[in-house]
Amino acid sequence: MGTRITSGHGSGGKMMRDLIETIIRPRFGPDTQTADDAAIIEARGLPLAFTTDSYTITPIFFPGGDIGSLAVNGTVNDLAVMGAAPISLSCALILEEGFAMDDLIRILDSMKAAAAAASVRIVTGDTKVVPHGKGDGVYINTSGIGIFETKVQRRPIAPGDRVVVSGFIGDHGMAIMAIRHNLSFAKGLVSDCANLNHMIRRVTDRFPEQVKFMRDPTRGGVATVCNEIAEGMPWGVKIIEQNLPIREEVKGVGGILGIDPLYAANEGKVLIVASPESAEGIVEILRASPEGRDAAIIGEITPEFPGRAWLATTVGGRRLLPLLTEEQLPRIC
Amino acid sequence: MGTRITSGHGSGGKMMRDLIETIIRPRFGPDTQTADDAAIIEARGLPLAFTTDSYTITPIFFPGGDIGSLAVNGTVNDLAVMGAAPISLSCALILEEGFAMDDLIRILDSMKAAAAAASVRIVTGDTKVVPHGKGDGVYINTSGIGIFETKVQRRPIAPGDRVVVSGFIGDHGMAIMAIRHNLSFAKGLVSDCANLNHMIRRVTDRFPEQVKFMRDPTRGGVATVCNEIAEGMPWGVKIIEQNLPIREEVKGVGGILGIDPLYAANEGKVLIVASPESAEGIVEILRASPEGRDAAIIGEITPEFPGRAWLATTVGGRRLLPLLTEEQLPRIC
Repeated sequence: MGTRITSGHGSGGKMMRDLIETIIRPRFGPDTQTADDAAIIEARGLPLAFTTDSYTITPIFFPGGDIGSLAVNGTVNDLAVMGAAPISLSCALILEEGFAMDDLIRILDSMKAAAAAASVRIVTGDTKVVPHGKGDGVYINTSGIGIFETKVQRRPIAPGDRVVVSGFIGDHGMAIMAIRHNLSFAKGLVSDCANLNHMIRRVTDRFPEQVKFMRDPTRGGVATVCNEIAEGMPWGVKIIEQNLPIREEVKGVGGILGIDPLYAANEGKVLIVASPESAEGIVEILRASPEGRDAAIIGEITPEFPGRAWLATTVGGRRLLPLLTEEQLPRIC
Repeated sequence: MGTRITSGHGSGGKMMRDLIETIIRPRFGPDTQTADDAAIIEARGLPLAFTTDSYTITPIFFPGGDIGSLAVNGTVNDLAVMGAAPISLSCALILEEGFAMDDLIRILDSMKAAAAAASVRIVTGDTKVVPHGKGDGVYINTSGIGIFETKVQRRPIAPGDRVVVSGFIGDHGMAIMAIRHNLSFAKGLVSDCANLNHMIRRVTDRFPEQVKFMRDPTRGGVATVCNEIAEGMPWGVKIIEQNLPIREEVKGVGGILGIDPLYAANEGKVLIVASPESAEGIVEILRASPEGRDAAIIGEITPEFPGRAWLATTVGGRRLLPLLTEEQLPRIC
C-alpha cells in the first residue's frame, strides 16, 4: 500500500507544504500560487488577483460566525492582503443529503451579510448534493477576483522592519476548539471572523511603499506565517512575547489543550511587515477600525536566526518557533 | 422537522432550480448568474466571465477521463459557451483521509494534461483534508476566469433558428451509469469528456452574429438545456428524434436503466442555437474538429408549444419533453 492522505496534509504545516511543493506545484507550473494567498494574473494587461478556498470547518455554526461568513471573509481577506480590492466572489456548495434547509438558509443569509460588509458581490455559484456519509452537512468553496487599486510597492524586507498584527491572536482557533471540547469557562470566547479589506485599504493608501508584506494568519497562525516570511531570507523574524495581544481565555484554552496561541488560526487579523518609521502610523490606522482596535507591534526583522521565526520570551529567553509538521487544529476553516 | 436537502437538489432538474431561484438567488442579488454557465463581471471596464463548479463524481476514474480532467474541461467549457476564452483556473481539493497518494497524483496529472489541451493555466489552489466518512476520496472545485476575445452578439432567438449539437449525446452519463451497474456489454462506451474552447472559438469567429445561444448540456442533458432555452420564450424548441446522434450502446444502457439519453449528461458537447442560414456552416466547422466529428442539426425553434421543449418522434408523433423534477443520474459530475 502506497502513501495515503492524512489529516496532516490539510494542516497548513510542513506536510501540507510538502504535498503542495512536491506533488501539486510541479504539475501546475512554476507560476502557480503557493506561498501567497492569491495568484496575480493578467487579463489584457489588467492585473487581477485570483484566489480559491474550500471551507470544511466543524462545527458549521460557532460564536462569532459560521461557515458562510468564514468563507466570504476568508476569500475577501486573501485578496486584500495581496493589495487587491475584492470585486466578485463565487459560491459553490457541496451539500450532504439530509442537511436542514433552515441551516442552509441561515448560512446563505450570513454570506449575504458578509458580502455586503465587504462591498463584494457573489456573482456565480454551483450546488452539488452528496449522499449521507459522504460529506458533513455543508462544504463551501469561495473563489474570488480582486483588482489592484493601489499599486503596492513590495520592497525587500530588511532588518529593523517591524511586524504588526491587527489585534488579539488565536481567537478563532481557540473558540472552535473550546466548543468542540465543551470548555464552559471559555463561553465568552468568539471567533474574530471579519472582513479586513476596508481597513487594509486605509493602511496601503497611506503607506503604499512602507508596507512590505501582508498576510492573514489563518491555518497555522502567526508562527506559521512568520516562518513563511523567514524562509529563504537572510534574516530572522523575531516575535516579542510580551507584546503579543492574547486574551486570557485563549491562553486558558490553549493551556488545557496544549495548543500555543501563536499557532492557532485567526480569521479576522492581518499581519503586516513594514518599515520601522511607518509601524506606529500603521498601528494608529488599524486601531481606528473596530476590527483593528487592539493592533500592536509584535516583533521585528533581525540579523539573528536567519531563515527562522523566533520568540523573545518575557523572561528574557530566546526560543525558535518551529514549522509544525502536522496539523494541530483539524478542520478549523 | 423542516425541509431537508435531498439528492434531487443537486440534479440539474426542477428541484435544483427551485432551490437556486427561491433560496440562493434572492440572497445573492439580481445579477447573480443562475441560468447561464458563468457570470459576466466588469473589472475596470474589462468584461470577464467568471464561473465555478464542484465535482463529486463517482467513480473518480472512468473510461474517457477522471474527476480531474472532468473538472478542468467542465470549467473551461462553461467559459467557452459564454463566448469567453478561458485564461486562468483555480483548483481546490477536498481530500478524504486515507485517499491514496498515487490516485491523487494520477488526477493531478490528468488536470495538467487537460489544462494544456485547453491552453489554460491553473494558477491558484487550496487543499483541505476531511476525516474518513466525511468525503468520498476527492472532491474538486475548479473556478475559472475568461476574457471576451470575440464580441458575440446575442440576437434574440426566433422561429426557424436551428438547434445544433456537436456530436453523440449521452455518452458521459451512460458511460458512468454502465460502470456503476457493471453492464459488461457497454464496455466500449467512454465519456466524451473534452475541452471545447478551441472548437467553439472557430465557430464564433466565423459566425459571431449568427450564434444566438451556446450551452454545454451537462447535468440534465440536451432535454434540460432545451427546456431552459424555451422557458419564458414565446416559441417552442423542437428536437427531431431521427436527427439525434445517439450510439447504440447509449440506447442500450438507457433502455436497461430506464434513462432517456436526451436527459443524460454530456461533458464534451456543445448545443448551439443559430440562424437558419448559418447552421450548415456551423456543422461543417464543428465536424472539422475531432471532438465535433459527429455534429448535426437536431432541431429548430417553432411557433408550436411556446415555452416548451418537444420531440418530433421518428414515427411522426409529438411529445413534450418535461423538465425533470428530481435527479435521474446522481453524482454524474
